[in-house]
Amino acid sequence: MADAKIYTASTTAPVNIAVIKYWGKRDTKLNLPTNSSLSVTLSQDDLRTHTTAACSSQFSADSLILNGEPQDVSGARQQACFRELRSLRAALEAADPSLPKLSTLPLKIVSENNFPTAAGLASSAAGFAALVRAIADLYQLPQSPTELSRIARQGSGSACRSLFGGYVSWEQGEAANGSDSLALEVAPASHWPQMRAAILVVSAAKKGVSSTSGMQATVATSALFPHRANVVVPERMVQMKQAIRDRDFETFADLTMRDSNQFHAVCLDTSPPIFYMNDVSRAAIRVVEEINRLAGKRVAAYTFDAGPNAVVYYLDENEDLVLGSLKGGLKGVPGWRASVTAEGVQGLDQGLLEPLKEGITRVILTSVGSGPVSVQESLVGADGAVVRK
Amino acid sequence: MADAKIYTASTTAPVNIAVIKYWGKRDTKLNLPTNSSLSVTLSQDDLRTHTTAACSSQFSADSLILNGEPQDVSGARQQACFRELRSLRAALEAADPSLPKLSTLPLKIVSENNFPTAAGLASSAAGFAALVRAIADLYQLPQSPTELSRIARQGSGSACRSLFGGYVSWEQGEAANGSDSLALEVAPASHWPQMRAAILVVSAAKKGVSSTSGMQATVATSALFPHRANVVVPERMVQMKQAIRDRDFETFADLTMRDSNQFHAVCLDTSPPIFYMNDVSRAAIRVVEEINRLAGKRVAAYTFDAGPNAVVYYLDENEDLVLGSLKGGLKGVPGWRASVTAEGVQGLDQGLLEPLKEGITRVILTSVGSGPVSVQESLVGADGAVVRK
Repeated sequence: MADAKIYTASTTAPVNIAVIKYWGKRDTKLNLPTNSSLSVTLSQDDLRTHTTAACSSQFSADSLILNGEPQDVSGARQQACFRELRSLRAALEAADPSLPKLSTLPLKIVSENNFPTAAGLASSAAGFAALVRAIADLYQLPQSPTELSRIARQGSGSACRSLFGGYVSWEQGEAANGSDSLALEVAPASHWPQMRAAILVVSAAKKGVSSTSGMQATVATSALFPHRANVVVPERMVQMKQAIRDRDFETFADLTMRDSNQFHAVCLDTSPPIFYMNDVSRAAIRVVEEINRLAGKRVAAYTFDAGPNAVVYYLDENEDLVLGSLKGGLKGVPGWRASVTAEGVQGLDQGLLEPLKEGITRVILTSVGSGPVSVQESLVGADGAVVRK
Repeated sequence: MADAKIYTASTTAPVNIAVIKYWGKRDTKLNLPTNSSLSVTLSQDDLRTHTTAACSSQFSADSLILNGEPQDVSGARQQACFRELRSLRAALEAADPSLPKLSTLPLKIVSENNFPTAAGLASSAAGFAALVRAIADLYQLPQSPTELSRIARQGSGSACRSLFGGYVSWEQGEAANGSDSLALEVAPASHWPQMRAAILVVSAAKKGVSSTSGMQATVATSALFPHRANVVVPERMVQMKQAIRDRDFETFADLTMRDSNQFHAVCLDTSPPIFYMNDVSRAAIRVVEEINRLAGKRVAAYTFDAGPNAVVYYLDENEDLVLGSLKGGLKGVPGWRASVTAEGVQGLDQGLLEPLKEGITRVILTSVGSGPVSVQESLVGADGAVVRK
């Protein structure tokens, strides 16, 4: 009789927030970017995707269940990940006939996020990183995270950076087939563990342009974009890596804020223009700039992805200064730490915090964290059914 | 006894709104720009500065009264205009001793705007253009508007474009002394008289960064700015002049909207970032983009200066389409034309107009217009006193 066993492997994977932004593809099928990017991996204690990859002859076809909802797996991105991972497994099986032929079995992927998808936090990065990591573990693949990042990239570009913890670069590469467009560890979380992040979740009136279509509109119509991709970002990548090696927060913050603003500037230079930040986002920028001015040095750095949410990076040693200053605008918001009683910077105009009170619906206080972790808890039961938490 | 006569000359001068933006100086003392710009002069029926220049031995010193308020004339910009105009007059007097020695007499300049300065409409352009034109008339100078634009430029850069009606370019020039940085008529209003403008005055919570300091912050810190000034704008100047010669509104509109967005993009790329548009401004952009999409062609073009106000250009033939579409968001706002009953474009989501209802405090409906005009009405009486309207 056929092997009816259910094979499973489970992992958790982190969210990453870029400080040098990915915006623009030179190859939309392979998700090859127009420029390199760099991100900080956030702690899975606060934000993570938990994924179990299972395969069995009991399953009728490949399937994916996310937060209890069946997802379409026929998309090119899903299929690319399944295909590449299966071929790596098939190579192992060919080399060692004693291995079970997992590459021939239907896959069931079950995934859960511990954060509200509604929050508009890029969950696809953690999702595809977890999917690739879990299947690679299921198949017991020997490939390194960097080698696997090539596969995760095809699922969602920024997912390649979530295969590492700490400080991670995505090198754009040059090869037409994308073989050299992959993620590298710039430094592990342990190199600079004092990095903290406060995510200010802003209620957006309506969802903006999707990043997938938005970035290609920018590539097609922005007269400023080529200068950013070809001249500005390559210089900033070098500077940012050095700042991280040197644990130089002032330079890290300066580059982070400039690059976020430049990313949104090329969105505005797109025709028709793309807006992701709103007046609440701009108020957050003004507050952070003012905190730095009053502190006499850069103690906080804002960055915004394709949405109005602000991510504010700061060092543990400046938590009183930064959170104490934001306190007036965030007190009483879900996720806020009531224990923050510090006064923050002297002389901060509390009026600057008013727009935050009105526009911020939730706060997530987190820090730099580790890469994907194998876990015992399985989301697929011994009977092959989905285990709901 | 000394000649106690009071010599006067009066003029009105128009506001101009740029479609290729001036942002950045290569010489802050001479107001020499980093790039050329191009504007449309608006009708003085709706927006004008009325200025009388008087000189007499009765006056104790140079003075300037704007809207009844005495102004400081010791500033370098004021002084540069007085000095240059006096030296041109002195040359005439030297050549013809029979001329009264007006260049030696104290000047009294009295100026009135017919629009609320509070509206945040760049009034300095009209103001300095009127001041230079009125003194030139008082002195009976033979210099052409282009020659006088060199002087007005030193008062306020964009003022040089208000010495002409219609469609006006400010050529950046190359000379270190600014001799070739001056205004030229691209086409008179009569070449394309169908151009209309709807100014949507947005209530700004607080005044933004002044354009004088803002533009130099951009020059100093924006990594994208040099590419705009050196590469993008020179191409657009050529294209915009051709579009105006061809009366090609679709190209005029495309370039106008792209250049406004790019100007605000380099402001956002400034460190710290500069914001002039707010959520109401962005809502106006969305509405105009949607009107064009539904119309199947560009029938309206938005542009924003250093503030949240929207200026929407359109052709007379499309007034029903454009004003009819905006009607839902502007009805009941001061300055609106109740006679606008047209329905506008079919299928416009009225929800897009909601932010306009909340944020727009006043509308000014105007059109392309003429340059400065000599007028009889004097703001300085026979007794040398200010005549209040």
